[in-house]
Amino acid sequence: MRVVHKYGGTSVGSLDRIRATAKLIQEDMARGNEVAVVVSAMSGETNRLIAMANEIDSKAPAREMDALVSTGEQVSAALLAIELNHLGVPAYSYSGSQAGFRTDSSHARARIKGVESEHLIRHMQAGEVPVVTGFQGSDEHGNITTLGRGGSDTSAVALAIAVNADVCNIYTDVNGIYTTDPRIVPQASKLQEISYEEMLEFASLGAKVLQTRSVELAMRFNIPIHLRSSFEGVAGTMVNGEDTGMERAEITGVAYNRDEAKVTIKGIPDQPGIAARIFGPVADADINVDVIVQNVSEHGLTDMTFTVPRNDYAATMALLEGLCTQMKAEKVTGDDTVAKVSIIGVGMRSHAGVARKMFDVLANENINIQMITTSEIKVTVVLEEKYVELAVHSLHSAFGLDAEEE
Amino acid sequence: MRVVHKYGGTSVGSLDRIRATAKLIQEDMARGNEVAVVVSAMSGETNRLIAMANEIDSKAPAREMDALVSTGEQVSAALLAIELNHLGVPAYSYSGSQAGFRTDSSHARARIKGVESEHLIRHMQAGEVPVVTGFQGSDEHGNITTLGRGGSDTSAVALAIAVNADVCNIYTDVNGIYTTDPRIVPQASKLQEISYEEMLEFASLGAKVLQTRSVELAMRFNIPIHLRSSFEGVAGTMVNGEDTGMERAEITGVAYNRDEAKVTIKGIPDQPGIAARIFGPVADADINVDVIVQNVSEHGLTDMTFTVPRNDYAATMALLEGLCTQMKAEKVTGDDTVAKVSIIGVGMRSHAGVARKMFDVLANENINIQMITTSEIKVTVVLEEKYVELAVHSLHSAFGLDAEEE
Repeated sequence: MRVVHKYGGTSVGSLDRIRATAKLIQEDMARGNEVAVVVSAMSGETNRLIAMANEIDSKAPAREMDALVSTGEQVSAALLAIELNHLGVPAYSYSGSQAGFRTDSSHARARIKGVESEHLIRHMQAGEVPVVTGFQGSDEHGNITTLGRGGSDTSAVALAIAVNADVCNIYTDVNGIYTTDPRIVPQASKLQEISYEEMLEFASLGAKVLQTRSVELAMRFNIPIHLRSSFEGVAGTMVNGEDTGMERAEITGVAYNRDEAKVTIKGIPDQPGIAARIFGPVADADINVDVIVQNVSEHGLTDMTFTVPRNDYAATMALLEGLCTQMKAEKVTGDDTVAKVSIIGVGMRSHAGVARKMFDVLANENINIQMITTSEIKVTVVLEEKYVELAVHSLHSAFGLDAEEE
Repeated sequence: MRVVHKYGGTSVGSLDRIRATAKLIQEDMARGNEVAVVVSAMSGETNRLIAMANEIDSKAPAREMDALVSTGEQVSAALLAIELNHLGVPAYSYSGSQAGFRTDSSHARARIKGVESEHLIRHMQAGEVPVVTGFQGSDEHGNITTLGRGGSDTSAVALAIAVNADVCNIYTDVNGIYTTDPRIVPQASKLQEISYEEMLEFASLGAKVLQTRSVELAMRFNIPIHLRSSFEGVAGTMVNGEDTGMERAEITGVAYNRDEAKVTIKGIPDQPGIAARIFGPVADADINVDVIVQNVSEHGLTDMTFTVPRNDYAATMALLEGLCTQMKAEKVTGDDTVAKVSIIGVGMRSHAGVARKMFDVLANENINIQMITTSEIKVTVVLEEKYVELAVHSLHSAFGLDAEEE
């Protein structure tokens, strides 16, 4: 098998951890696999570098910031290569640029255009391990670029595609994806597999185990991602296409996100273009709007309600107060103690009545639903934050996800 | 004027020092000069990186060590570029590879083959400052290489040649070259200029202000080096060709080196090839032999005496004991309390009797000369270490180098 391993900052965060990581790679080589590795910077290093730059100028040119922070991965890649050679595994470190990661010129948030990987494949075929810096590449002029925070997962998937790997192993400090947060529901169980689409829905809800971009990329090229722990030798969760034979349960998991606030602008004259007049300025302020509900118009007036990250609540309220006057709307209200709870699963495509069952479960617990939004494989409700645990518990149980006690 | 500035580790060793360094560059730009900059790693950084690698493996592959330590300069180059932009001076950091430094593949001690500098020249012509990492480049396969310790001076001179600069300013923590060590002779005075050849002789005697390689390179392409302090605004010492008009004094300066030991192998059968039989094994042991004296043969036997760095004294003695038995020589003796004192100056080419005057001065002080070696512009004697101060003092004075009191 040809395998890409990706290790995050904690897996290379100390010399001891680098040793343990090198052992995992050595073991995989011993199984006869061809291995390429993608590493993040040692944990804390990227922040250390950014702090130095910020002390000089908090608005440093993005090109220079990329040149600066890209050194973090270069250090960990070289140290891991040194340890691998020390164990007798021939290994060569490569910066993103050297590895052949070509990106556009959008510093700090570059997109990968392609990976020139012939030399990396040659290494792998020769039983050697290329150790590639994640999170970075270079543009057509040779300028160093970075992909943005968490870009290392995306680097790993892109590399897996480029070297035509069978699987991309992403090692992290969790051992897989669970049916829900085990801190809330002790009966939550680890999923053996999950589809790309489901993973995307989980990720967008704040389960930040995998970068969304990396999952999208893996989905497009159908590269399986094996999300697993770098501390435990056991299998984690395989993220792949849906078509794996087994009948699906109604839902795969229950997710939640407390990082939510809700704002409403009431009594707006209902005219074409009002959505643009509201959400234009909000987007300009770099505020991500999530769930949006527009009330049915009454007497030519309508209400618009939407959720934003809780951190942006104050800014959003201030912005809407201004718009309210401008648009001659009635008033602005808000609530920063709301949360989202979602049920997610490709199974709901073939099971009718899943949404209705969710509403029943919540109604039985006397939980008031404030907003609803649905996609093909997800139903999300916004509710008072204090109900999160209760909602997650009862949904997990009602949909038959509680692990059986042994 | 087109100028290359080179700043060592202390000049970028802290954010405060980086600010001061950026100011020096800004001032030079304000004079209408075109400026390119070469920087070392922040002081201590290279050692920190090496220590991490050594903790894993003290014999780490040279390729990986180069990839690792090259990040040190990349950090300081980016930080200096950020500070320059902050001051309103447009600046762009470049790694050695990006800057176009092409080297051979001898990791840790690569030789520069050429510098592709068109893009750097374009920056300079546009009033922008390229900030280039010293000490590094890349080979024909794109592997990162380093030039060896102190290689940043060589990078700076190579860049000055490549961009056709008028002068290479090397900023350091001393303000120039002195007629001798001011700690021994308070009357020592700063030289306004010194020839490349003289600088090479000074450098080889342990006055480690400039890398020998950088001076050799500057000499070959006739690029003046202005060695000056990054703390003082005044002119330092200009290192350049000899042909600068003024009549030369007999000598330019007096240098010394205490880091010496002397060994003698006595009563060797005087046959062709004995030098090779002695110095072959010594060279194989990586010991640098300096002054060599072979006695006139007597009864078919001869003695061979030479100096080595004091650190290598024990190893050299052990090695010679073995050879003594092998070669059926009489015995081995040694002394690790010797030192070298030299008078240096291109003026001695046109002044006869300079060596003789030196011997007279030392004789008058009752200093016994143990070995003598001469070159066209240098006379070196080996003497007991305890005489160093006396010898340097009296030579400095006798050759008229003592600064006049005002």
